[in-house]
Amino acid sequence: MLREDDLVYLLDEKGKRYWITLNPGMLKVPGLGVLDGSKVIGQEEGSEVSLAGQGFVVLRPGAVELMESLDRGPQVITPKDAATILLRCDLKPGDAVVESGVGSGSLTTALLNAVGDDGWVISVEIREDFAQKARRNVSRLGEPLNWELRLGDIAEVVIESKVDAVVLDLADPWDALDNVETFLRPGGRFCAYLPNMNQAERLVRELRVRRYVEIDALENIQRGLEVHEAGVRPSYETLGHTGYLIFARKAAGRDE
Amino acid sequence: MLREDDLVYLLDEKGKRYWITLNPGMLKVPGLGVLDGSKVIGQEEGSEVSLAGQGFVVLRPGAVELMESLDRGPQVITPKDAATILLRCDLKPGDAVVESGVGSGSLTTALLNAVGDDGWVISVEIREDFAQKARRNVSRLGEPLNWELRLGDIAEVVIESKVDAVVLDLADPWDALDNVETFLRPGGRFCAYLPNMNQAERLVRELRVRRYVEIDALENIQRGLEVHEAGVRPSYETLGHTGYLIFARKAAGRDE
Amino acid sequence: MLREDDLVYLLDEKGKRYWITLNPGMLKVPGLGVLDGSKVIGQEEGSEVSLAGQGFVVLRPGAVELMESLDRGPQVITPKDAATILLRCDLKPGDAVVESGVGSGSLTTALLNAVGDDGWVISVEIREDFAQKARRNVSRLGEPLNWELRLGDIAEVVIESKVDAVVLDLADPWDALDNVETFLRPGGRFCAYLPNMNQAERLVRELRVRRYVEIDALENIQRGLEVHEAGVRPSYETLGHTGYLIFARKAAGRDE
Amino acid sequence: MLREDDLVYLLDEKGKRYWITLNPGMLKVPGLGVLDGSKVIGQEEGSEVSLAGQGFVVLRPGAVELMESLDRGPQVITPKDAATILLRCDLKPGDAVVESGVGSGSLTTALLNAVGDDGWVISVEIREDFAQKARRNVSRLGEPLNWELRLGDIAEVVIESKVDAVVLDLADPWDALDNVETFLRPGGRFCAYLPNMNQAERLVRELRVRRYVEIDALENIQRGLEVHEAGVRPSYETLGHTGYLIFARKAAGRDE
Repeated sequence: MLREDDLVYLLDEKGKRYWITLNPGMLKVPGLGVLDGSKVIGQEEGSEVSLAGQGFVVLRPGAVELMESLDRGPQVITPKDAATILLRCDLKPGDAVVESGVGSGSLTTALLNAVGDDGWVISVEIREDFAQKARRNVSRLGEPLNWELRLGDIAEVVIESKVDAVVLDLADPWDALDNVETFLRPGGRFCAYLPNMNQAERLVRELRVRRYVEIDALENIQRGLEVHEAGVRPSYETLGHTGYLIFARKAAGRDE
Repeated sequence: MLREDDLVYLLDEKGKRYWITLNPGMLKVPGLGVLDGSKVIGQEEGSEVSLAGQGFVVLRPGAVELMESLDRGPQVITPKDAATILLRCDLKPGDAVVESGVGSGSLTTALLNAVGDDGWVISVEIREDFAQKARRNVSRLGEPLNWELRLGDIAEVVIESKVDAVVLDLADPWDALDNVETFLRPGGRFCAYLPNMNQAERLVRELRVRRYVEIDALENIQRGLEVHEAGVRPSYETLGHTGYLIFARKAAGRDE
Repeated sequence: MLREDDLVYLLDEKGKRYWITLNPGMLKVPGLGVLDGSKVIGQEEGSEVSLAGQGFVVLRPGAVELMESLDRGPQVITPKDAATILLRCDLKPGDAVVESGVGSGSLTTALLNAVGDDGWVISVEIREDFAQKARRNVSRLGEPLNWELRLGDIAEVVIESKVDAVVLDLADPWDALDNVETFLRPGGRFCAYLPNMNQAERLVRELRVRRYVEIDALENIQRGLEVHEAGVRPSYETLGHTGYLIFARKAAGRDE
Repeated sequence: MLREDDLVYLLDEKGKRYWITLNPGMLKVPGLGVLDGSKVIGQEEGSEVSLAGQGFVVLRPGAVELMESLDRGPQVITPKDAATILLRCDLKPGDAVVESGVGSGSLTTALLNAVGDDGWVISVEIREDFAQKARRNVSRLGEPLNWELRLGDIAEVVIESKVDAVVLDLADPWDALDNVETFLRPGGRFCAYLPNMNQAERLVRELRVRRYVEIDALENIQRGLEVHEAGVRPSYETLGHTGYLIFARKAAGRDE
């Protein structure tokens, strides 16, 4: 049931989403008009409302819609890559994970979703403007209790307890490896996201030297499939490169 | 710390995994020899052991290693596709999800991992031999308390309460859509995995008729990146098709 | 050496091409200014000229630059697909080939290039406006003597002699197969270009019924590789679907 | 019409090819049995013959079948890449082209096909064993009159006249660039085939320093499409990396 203070989106027939936070008053929907919130609250999720002569379906966002509603671009970790990070870092309810940088908070949303209320996400960001932007984006559903956003350099920050996974979205992840050793638990999962092949190569060589195991580098390509009147075919659009994902597990008693 | 009854794998220098369940006695490692379990128990995860003159790192498996240790093939949902299913079905701690068929239990492991102890996975399988194989595979870490495996036809089975998501890995998922309506909550997520484009096309058209929203069909391609002495390049190996993923969300008060 | 009446392009530092036909007078280069043709004629191809304070390299176009200078879009056969058509249709000097439709003449240019002066290209186009556009595009280098452009329906047109290859870029290539039998020589090569998978499937099944051999369907994906200051990576841009290519060879004495 | 001394292949129902050279005697077809050549000679290409109770279609090979009948592997330039080389090097009847190394002669066959009897292919190979293997492979259709195979180092060999294009399949193509300057005509086309991204990066940077223009690096991915009883889908098999293709055109009066 849709409730007051829920962040929801109105979905039109063409798939466009209009975002609002529900309250019982008159809600301004940018680009559409005004909606009487009291008629939406109490209805089932997925219900239809009318506005400006059009029908809209009202839905709560999941991680994927929250990610897609941020600014897109090569610099944002996209859902296809976030999905692989969650699975390959084996993130599950109760896990603790460190990420750096936080960027616009796209991956953060997915991490928080995966580890849940019993888990813990620490996001380390060196730039204050990015940190602020991420905080704004991540807190659209309310300030998460399982999230800590720290201003600082991941190569130097002190993380007091051991974590299950570390995800680095940085140009120079090798600079952080000494510090990562101090807080990633043995057997824990390491991941880095890097646009250039040279960076991927350098990081893999550094991880080998540090005797990480299960080192794996890969790239995701996701193609849309379109169903038209005339038939079905892959999308004509944009299937470009985003970044390389490098995964590894930390062995015990090495480099210590 | 590694404990008695832990399922672990020994990882050799080339990345090959040897699976054992820890106990304090002499453990037969198929293809390698015999390991004294009492010397492993109590050590940190990621520790090194020696066997037959070789060094091995001892690690607990995550969902991805469990999935990779099953028989592979087009008929198994691979980690790359499972990752996308978890994210796009917005599965998180506490969610309830129905899957059918269960196959060899590869996706089941990932679903259980994602929803956690507070969540619920119901796997519906029509073939008893598949169900038994899945039970064996899924229970390698112990029988999960949040899992129910039912013998039956997903087109007819009665699911008593509403679930957050449904994942179908069936040749004819459209036959199950009437029944899915009875237990997928409004706003809930639907996913199907289908090898042929004709199936993807037919399902998308059926979902449109049933007024599902956010219908999206896609394919994942994952390329390995290999770092050699001489440099870095994409893998020469296997980048073939696995299946199409079709996602949708259920609207409320439609088809009811 | 660059000569009068040569079609050339001026290439700027950023890779933009400006097209002109050389003559000894003052040449207007759209978007740039005026160039003294007499100073270009007689110079080597690849020479540099100055215009509006910028340097430009003067080059004659090959098939690929001619193709790229046409309007792009899904409806044009792109160089990546044209390249595969030329090789898999085994087109070589002296060969005779029929294509239909002619579209904007993009593939025609590549076909003419491949079969040379001793070869023969017959382009059959049902729409007069397309035929005119193609004639304009193809004749930029002068009206080719080895080209015949016919207005008509490939399903009905009479081709008097046997040809080595047929390339169909039509929505319903199966409708033309009866007529293709009358002019494609035994052992000759058949190719069709089709955007939808349903079309590809139907055509393959038709070709099997007609006992064509070496039936092969495929799709080309071409990714740019970009070298930046910071390193090297695949292009972020456009790697979408264009069309499926279906190839086959005609057996003798079948369907006759 | 099939003639004495023709190299042909017998194609079985499953697409397997059996190679023979026609003569009027009894022909041993390895793996199948003995065929009476006198009954094949004089028939149309594409005719069917019976052997060991099976039907076979008799076909002359084109460049693509000749290439596919060589040993495959990463070290051979595959048809998909050869096709792009022919088009992007703008090879046409009468052109002169230099390639090095010759490898097993796979690309040579395609180059000879494209430039025809009025063209000229010079293959430079430093290793005598490769040169011999290539000669054997290329001469299956008879010793080509438009082909010159030279033992030597492409970085030092003297090519007396200017050529239209150069194709390098070498680990260190930059070492050859000084010498390439001496025989590639201004406006001519340069191509290199390189498996590693580091090599591609280095070569692109070298070409920029030497002020080549139209520098373009790309990778081809080709996916088979399979039509089964149950429908149509991309191939499950092998879509791996082969190599990067780097193209450029030579400007005049630079580096001279």
